[in-house]
Amino acid sequence: MPRSVPALPEGIDPAWLPPEAFRALGARRTLIRGSGPLVETVHGEVADACGRFGGEVVRGGGTVAPYDLVMEVTDADHLGDEGFTCGRAGSTTTVTASGQRGLLYGLFHVVRLGEEAFRGERPRAVHRPAVAPRMLDHWDNVDVHPVMGQVERGYAGGSLFWRDGRARGEVERVRAYGRLLAACGINAVAVNNVNVHATEARLLTDRLGDVAVLADALRPYGIRVHLSVTFAAPVVLGGLPTADPLDTAVRQWWARAVRGVYAAIPDFGGFVVKADSEGQPGPFTYGRSHADGANMLAAALAPHGGTVHWRAFVYDHRQDWRDRTTDRARAAYDHFAPLDGEFADNAVLQVKHGPMDFQVREPVSPVLGAMPRTRLAVEVQATQEYTGQQRHVCWLGPMWSEVLRFRPEGEDGPSVGELARGGLVAVSNAGDDPFWTGHPLAQANLYTVGRLAWEPDADPHRLLDEWIALTFPAAPERLVTGVRTLLRGSRRTYEKYTAPLGVGFMVQPGHHYGPSVDGYEYSPWGTYHFADRDGIGVDRSAATGTGYAAQYAEPWAARYESPGTCPDELLLFFHHVPYGHVLHSGTTVIQHIYDTHFEGVAEVEEARRVWASLADCVDPARHARVAERYEEQLRGAREWRDQVNSYFLRKSGVPDEHGRTVY
Amino acid sequence: MPRSVPALPEGIDPAWLPPEAFRALGARRTLIRGSGPLVETVHGEVADACGRFGGEVVRGGGTVAPYDLVMEVTDADHLGDEGFTCGRAGSTTTVTASGQRGLLYGLFHVVRLGEEAFRGERPRAVHRPAVAPRMLDHWDNVDVHPVMGQVERGYAGGSLFWRDGRARGEVERVRAYGRLLAACGINAVAVNNVNVHATEARLLTDRLGDVAVLADALRPYGIRVHLSVTFAAPVVLGGLPTADPLDTAVRQWWARAVRGVYAAIPDFGGFVVKADSEGQPGPFTYGRSHADGANMLAAALAPHGGTVHWRAFVYDHRQDWRDRTTDRARAAYDHFAPLDGEFADNAVLQVKHGPMDFQVREPVSPVLGAMPRTRLAVEVQATQEYTGQQRHVCWLGPMWSEVLRFRPEGEDGPSVGELARGGLVAVSNAGDDPFWTGHPLAQANLYTVGRLAWEPDADPHRLLDEWIALTFPAAPERLVTGVRTLLRGSRRTYEKYTAPLGVGFMVQPGHHYGPSVDGYEYSPWGTYHFADRDGIGVDRSAATGTGYAAQYAEPWAARYESPGTCPDELLLFFHHVPYGHVLHSGTTVIQHIYDTHFEGVAEVEEARRVWASLADCVDPARHARVAERYEEQLRGAREWRDQVNSYFLRKSGVPDEHGRTVY
Repeated sequence: MPRSVPALPEGIDPAWLPPEAFRALGARRTLIRGSGPLVETVHGEVADACGRFGGEVVRGGGTVAPYDLVMEVTDADHLGDEGFTCGRAGSTTTVTASGQRGLLYGLFHVVRLGEEAFRGERPRAVHRPAVAPRMLDHWDNVDVHPVMGQVERGYAGGSLFWRDGRARGEVERVRAYGRLLAACGINAVAVNNVNVHATEARLLTDRLGDVAVLADALRPYGIRVHLSVTFAAPVVLGGLPTADPLDTAVRQWWARAVRGVYAAIPDFGGFVVKADSEGQPGPFTYGRSHADGANMLAAALAPHGGTVHWRAFVYDHRQDWRDRTTDRARAAYDHFAPLDGEFADNAVLQVKHGPMDFQVREPVSPVLGAMPRTRLAVEVQATQEYTGQQRHVCWLGPMWSEVLRFRPEGEDGPSVGELARGGLVAVSNAGDDPFWTGHPLAQANLYTVGRLAWEPDADPHRLLDEWIALTFPAAPERLVTGVRTLLRGSRRTYEKYTAPLGVGFMVQPGHHYGPSVDGYEYSPWGTYHFADRDGIGVDRSAATGTGYAAQYAEPWAARYESPGTCPDELLLFFHHVPYGHVLHSGTTVIQHIYDTHFEGVAEVEEARRVWASLADCVDPARHARVAERYEEQLRGAREWRDQVNSYFLRKSGVPDEHGRTVY
Repeated sequence: MPRSVPALPEGIDPAWLPPEAFRALGARRTLIRGSGPLVETVHGEVADACGRFGGEVVRGGGTVAPYDLVMEVTDADHLGDEGFTCGRAGSTTTVTASGQRGLLYGLFHVVRLGEEAFRGERPRAVHRPAVAPRMLDHWDNVDVHPVMGQVERGYAGGSLFWRDGRARGEVERVRAYGRLLAACGINAVAVNNVNVHATEARLLTDRLGDVAVLADALRPYGIRVHLSVTFAAPVVLGGLPTADPLDTAVRQWWARAVRGVYAAIPDFGGFVVKADSEGQPGPFTYGRSHADGANMLAAALAPHGGTVHWRAFVYDHRQDWRDRTTDRARAAYDHFAPLDGEFADNAVLQVKHGPMDFQVREPVSPVLGAMPRTRLAVEVQATQEYTGQQRHVCWLGPMWSEVLRFRPEGEDGPSVGELARGGLVAVSNAGDDPFWTGHPLAQANLYTVGRLAWEPDADPHRLLDEWIALTFPAAPERLVTGVRTLLRGSRRTYEKYTAPLGVGFMVQPGHHYGPSVDGYEYSPWGTYHFADRDGIGVDRSAATGTGYAAQYAEPWAARYESPGTCPDELLLFFHHVPYGHVLHSGTTVIQHIYDTHFEGVAEVEEARRVWASLADCVDPARHARVAERYEEQLRGAREWRDQVNSYFLRKSGVPDEHGRTVY
């Protein structure tokens, strides 16, 4: 029985799967061969499209007939569960897959190709995801957290899964969400926040049924659910006196708990764990290592095929700002690199892409090049915590691509995308907002992150164009060009009007929205810029600084070590320099600060103008929502510009060369 | 029937009314003459004391007998309802009062005198409060506010009146509270926050019964209750389309509401109103003046003898930090001085003691000298919002006394205490904490504010000694000396380690605890210090600044106008000066910053030592609570010292003359 396509609740945006995107497919005659639940999903999709656009779908037919598209599960190709091939000969396009999931991904590939899929000849090409899992972490709380709310760092309304302490039970919306995710290649979702509070802890035990409902909704789109668990679960849920990972009773408790989970959710993905981090409990309490902790959970999950994602975000969040020798940037490497080779095969070490915390500009985490014998996953934030909170446009594709294409051992070595055998994990930016992501253009981040997980070396601009073509089908060229322009430059624009030259932060404490240059300067969080009347930046060199630069292999260690070779955009991350220091660009640091902040605002003004000019070719609700957010972005950008410029004029005493207004 | 003394719930500190404080009275033979409910309160108090200490109380007896104390209500003296006389001839001490309240205050006067009341001769002296009402404003919310909590700016646990949306109904504790307040002279309590939210608005109407319960509990101690109301009540409660104060239907609505209040609470005190301030609605909405707004409520209250307290805390809290011409300090004067003479007799204009917001050092508000034809009340904060939040010791008696003794027209003119015919209003620092005020030593603030309201020109050190004698009866001299030392210097110590030279703020945004030098520098709140690499301070002169200094009469306008004559402690409030500017004290501004911050911490260290040395003569619970808070104060003071010093070293580049550590 073909599985029906989820009905989008009234008023909810179809995002990158509007009916029109299925026109080419839906107008054709398609044969589907194979069996299993995901083949039924594929059948349902094609049938739904054909219902709209006059095509036809045939199931399994033995004899060859004049089909426009043949989709077939066959184990001839050994492409794994997720790979597929696509080619076209004569007047037939053929998609083959070794597994049902591959067929599903092949379907969405055909959708992306649109009419192209049915034109001319097309050599048979193999498509296979680079990594698995390709995962979204939802920082969704079950209970509304008194400070963090329903979704921690969520900027798209409430949670799709939970509300006010209970499961929402809106299965159709969750199915529609899973469909969107499958269409960009996501195959795993962690359904609760890595900060696991009392109620959320119980998802592992007596509230497991709520998780099973989500698993059932997402399974037809090839998505497995994962659960964030508290390391202290044996104590807080099991009543044991300890959560020591080497304690037999603890290990038995976890094994039993995991058996319970798999009884309810046979294809359960595994656990996500934030341990010994920002107040969460962990193995350090018992004098054990992170490998001990992770491996204990891995052992419990292994018999069932599950994975533990162990986050490497471990640092001292009670740092003394007076102490310039402690460097938060060093922490993940210092904690984890010595453990390389000690993690179990089904333990994934989940490493933030940069050494700090999802700033708009950071160097790539040195951990990603330092643990070849560990399954590493790269963690990125689709949710725009520090990048405008989905009120500002900031398409992060180029940044993620830079990370994934970074080669820790130089040009001849492997890329991060190749090294990260544990996959790509993104913190979700989706919520119950009608546009899913608050800012309609922020959908591009969610789409891009899924596609990059599948194909880490992809040109992000190509993925952006895919998103535009799907989201605005049959759009006039000026809309395509306009949206492309707005998004391509948006990260650089955001960077321009916020913290300069890689120094990071300068945000309002707590909520992290809007500027506060000294907001974290005298805090315990380890995120400082050290600006004084003479200069700014953090000396992370090995020669005179914290030694962080030496955590990299060559050529990066040497390149970052000296202000003379350090890339401009990371200069203040690695060096404390005078305001008069001349950048490779030829301008001084102080003048660069002024220039970029004026430019950033001008670029937002221009972006707002471009968007306004597209009013006639975008549906009114979407246009209004984006227009309203551009107003806020412009207000915010001006506030950033003026606060940052004023701060540095007051401190440096150096006037703007061009005599522009600095307050 | 004598009214029984309220039973203090288990574990609740008796504060300045421990049983021992009644020893002298309780060991005597007392005659009480007069009738009425408050006379019964007095009778109950004396009877309770006699029950403990072996004395005797006789009621009304016609013939003279050998009494140690005679307390009598007689209208011979015309002292008003609250005045009393006290004298001693032969072996009899006599207290007379024209009204019942006077007798109650006379009783607590005798308690304060202790054995002194019964020694030698004592000429008959008249005691009369300078002003009425002497009021506490409770910023207590009925519902827990999502940001501000149960008590806005409360640092002493929950509210004594409300919990989680309901009246607490702990009448005995409220009675005990009323007794403490009466013993220091308070006669009015506003029972809810001046920021009136939805639930609190209904205290005026369908939840009036909750207020009546409080009124019943407080009445026997001579205290009238007041209610904070929202100016928008006719709209939000009455369903009218407007709250225009000149609209007939609005006036009728208020008249009817007030009649309802007085039907339930015949001695109701009146309303407190925060209008057109920080988001609260007000007459500006309707193009009316604050006098129109206040007078409309005054008219509704007048037939019943009620008063409206109309707060003068009106300013633009959406200021643009870029705009240096707007000056929040000017706002109250600019708004209200032109309205002098326009307010009704039963309207009190409630003016914060300084032009900003309860900083540890501000000049006296120029409004207090500028409205001779208006009943002004001085508003102070017993709750230590900006002065250490009852985790730091900061006895504010000297500051309040400075305000009350300030003479706006110079030495020959009247003092603020004389000008403020509308009384003294303090924001309460009490809550359901076992010590009432969180920090046990913060009780001294509550006591002092009541006593200063009664006698504004009192030497605050004398009032402090009263509090010590009552709170620590029969204490060894070194305890008395120790506590006196700790409290006397505490405000100056707090000032030393926080914002320098009157510039104010530099606190963490939102909660206002702990340092953040730039925390409000680029905010919309109008509270800036304008520090740059060359200097610091706000130019409020008439010649080159905002003109605020000219809001004063002479000699103050001229004195504040010039850095040469401006008092050191207010220099940065009135002037922007270079870091090298030499103070009257002989040191430079920058060195003063370093010196005072090191001194402030040293003084806290010394205070902690002194308190530790008193462990043997303070009860353990109280000693432990204070000792624990001194630890936090010391931590906090060090944080203030280091952040402020580092900030100014980084900005000025001037090293500390004495080579001490600045980070």
